Amino acid sequence: MFRRTLVQLMSNAKPFTFKPSQQTSSFGPSVWLEFSPLSVKHKSVNLGQGFPDFEPADFVRDALIKTIEKGGLNQYTRSAGHPRLVNALSKFYSPYFNRDIDPMTEIVTSVGASEALFCTIQSVVNPGDEVILIEPFFDIYLGAVLMAGGVPKYVSLKEEPRVEGKKRTADGWKLDINEFEQAFSDKTKLVILNNPHNPVGKVFKLDELTEIAEVVKKHPQTCVISDEVYEWMTYDNAEHLRFANIPGMWERTITIGSAGKTFSITGWKVGWCIGPKPIIHSIAMAHQYIPFSVPTPTQEAVAIAFEEAPARGYFDQLKKMYQAKRDQLVSALADSGLDPVIPQGAYFIMGDISKIKLFGDQGQNTSITGMGKHLHDWNVCRWLTTDIGVTAIPPSSFYSDEHAPLSTNYARFCFCKKEEVLETARQNLLKVKDTENYQK
Amino acid sequence: MFRRTLVQLMSNAKPFTFKPSQQTSSFGPSVWLEFSPLSVKHKSVNLGQGFPDFEPADFVRDALIKTIEKGGLNQYTRSAGHPRLVNALSKFYSPYFNRDIDPMTEIVTSVGASEALFCTIQSVVNPGDEVILIEPFFDIYLGAVLMAGGVPKYVSLKEEPRVEGKKRTADGWKLDINEFEQAFSDKTKLVILNNPHNPVGKVFKLDELTEIAEVVKKHPQTCVISDEVYEWMTYDNAEHLRFANIPGMWERTITIGSAGKTFSITGWKVGWCIGPKPIIHSIAMAHQYIPFSVPTPTQEAVAIAFEEAPARGYFDQLKKMYQAKRDQLVSALADSGLDPVIPQGAYFIMGDISKIKLFGDQGQNTSITGMGKHLHDWNVCRWLTTDIGVTAIPPSSFYSDEHAPLSTNYARFCFCKKEEVLETARQNLLKVKDTENYQK
Repeated sequence: MFRRTLVQLMSNAKPFTFKPSQQTSSFGPSVWLEFSPLSVKHKSVNLGQGFPDFEPADFVRDALIKTIEKGGLNQYTRSAGHPRLVNALSKFYSPYFNRDIDPMTEIVTSVGASEALFCTIQSVVNPGDEVILIEPFFDIYLGAVLMAGGVPKYVSLKEEPRVEGKKRTADGWKLDINEFEQAFSDKTKLVILNNPHNPVGKVFKLDELTEIAEVVKKHPQTCVISDEVYEWMTYDNAEHLRFANIPGMWERTITIGSAGKTFSITGWKVGWCIGPKPIIHSIAMAHQYIPFSVPTPTQEAVAIAFEEAPARGYFDQLKKMYQAKRDQLVSALADSGLDPVIPQGAYFIMGDISKIKLFGDQGQNTSITGMGKHLHDWNVCRWLTTDIGVTAIPPSSFYSDEHAPLSTNYARFCFCKKEEVLETARQNLLKVKDTENYQK
Repeated sequence: MFRRTLVQLMSNAKPFTFKPSQQTSSFGPSVWLEFSPLSVKHKSVNLGQGFPDFEPADFVRDALIKTIEKGGLNQYTRSAGHPRLVNALSKFYSPYFNRDIDPMTEIVTSVGASEALFCTIQSVVNPGDEVILIEPFFDIYLGAVLMAGGVPKYVSLKEEPRVEGKKRTADGWKLDINEFEQAFSDKTKLVILNNPHNPVGKVFKLDELTEIAEVVKKHPQTCVISDEVYEWMTYDNAEHLRFANIPGMWERTITIGSAGKTFSITGWKVGWCIGPKPIIHSIAMAHQYIPFSVPTPTQEAVAIAFEEAPARGYFDQLKKMYQAKRDQLVSALADSGLDPVIPQGAYFIMGDISKIKLFGDQGQNTSITGMGKHLHDWNVCRWLTTDIGVTAIPPSSFYSDEHAPLSTNYARFCFCKKEEVLETARQNLLKVKDTENYQK
């Protein structure tokens, strides 16, 4: 005791106390940090996190090997985007946007779509500005908005009442345009759209996008992020329409894309923003101080992939592959009594878990991270992992706390997995109906 | 006219106007965006940006090729760091920090040291908090501080008066500890140290670090970033000391490292933070929402590189290689009348340009980006590029505007270049003395 006091006096030190910054202090472990380790622990089939469990196409993998073997591409490249990649993106995307996209001023490459989102939000949103998020939304949006000091405003997609005998599809999830319009104020700096939509699988139609654009147009300060990372995954002849192509929207829309989703290389972390010069300039300026640049070898390889993909018929093959996987998981969920909302896009399916009832501490005590969320969807997703052997994600993690109860009768299953993995998931899910938890 | 009015009435649209966020609105093109294109345009020897122009060691390159060939490492990995890499870093660095570094809670990997800096600053600095930057400082620090809403406070290293006959070394650049102490307030949340120091080449000694720690200790809210990316590049038996090892500093210090500098792969963009659990936890939480994760294949390859490097004697070879390059460029600058400040660390040399006088519009009209900075060092660096054929960087870009005049008699030259490139630079620089601009 004496000794300790003496040391304190001698060192003249005050005790250090760490407080995280207010803009990050609310952050805890995300939903992924709960369910990925839980899945590993219980050896469940993991249909949680949305990354392919299969290898990319050989020509994509070979592009990276050749790039490293060739050498000369191991140092920093241009901060706003490796020249070969921005040129490849410009050439590839210009026809889809019906304009010549300038590779040097209308594209920024990013460390995956994640950093594209973060950087765009930093460049656009002032502390106190409002940002409209359409629920359910990819949870990463909110973290980036909070770090910019933005104030999130939530509008929910809502599922139309079920019509007996009619197929239940993602098309039945609608944005109430009046509710959307009422969410705006003079402080609305940004709207974040996601199309095709994760987790619902909705592909917005022309009239829906036009209606959204009409509201946006009334607000001269409002930009739009259109997160289109699932652009190549559309089913049943649903057509992906780009929000930037709606008349009047180009000049305020930043379209975000992902090589990870497009070429099944989520671990390479290459994404991009395409948009009008003034906004892209701002994003590039912020990007200089975040990662400075995106890794060079993977940018070169993705450029090669884009140069070669069309002639190889790659995008058609990708769509066909995912259509088959979607059909496989839709059927598995339907047969298991987890009535699926059939998606027209992306690679997730919302399964209806309202018939599952839990008893006692089922789904309560298995949280590894101690996140302590005990809404019905969280508990059921834990129970599915521990007792059924399939991991799904509770979609209430894609809602504000206030609106979380809207989604507690669903679980999100992803189908970007090998055929045999989806088949094992089916076998496991079929057990649900035989448990006493399932109320027929 | 009529038609336009009608269209406006019909569309009910207000004109969109884009304003970047206030935290990014001051950002313009960085010094790199001025001098890299200027060097390309004038085909000068580029000793500006600090990246090696040579290939990494074969075992490093091969590690990435094998990783891609093996497959299975193309998808997202753990957000806070690829398990194999954090384990390799823990094993490698624990002896250097005299403690067992927990790979899962005391390390976060990052998209290069840049994102490590950005993420740490976001996690620590509140809007209005003060951050002490020691001039000259790597320009990326300031961008990250401003995006967090931080208020920079500047303290300058100052070169001691020259003593005739005594070698002019980076050791002669000193931090005035009273000035440093006076820069603190109750709002000082962060100090950013850089050791070995870019651009001065100073390697801080034990008494200097201890003095800094004594001041820091008086401020219970203050964290320290120790940017040690040049840790393996020390010369003339200078010893790199880690600030986190100074008694009492571990718990508040985040040490930042870089595979780019260590393995000559700046384009792979793999870096890390090592520090105490509470701060590393905060950084990991912010990192989830910035890039989400660092690319998987390059993390695997860097892990392999760390596993293999010690047995290969890699770090000794690296130091020897850079010592030779340093000696080569020191000699070239001395012979060219650009009296060098001999560095003990990092891979830059400050050359004295006070004897160069420019006339008329020399160095004035060659800015590509129109940045319009016309301090002596900027003008001379332009003139060196256009008329002499060597590009260097004006160090005033590493100072606040207020203190920029302190450094206008220097230019920063980097020596992380091939021997023959440094020889060509020497040949070109020797011309300086023969111009009428050089005042003997």
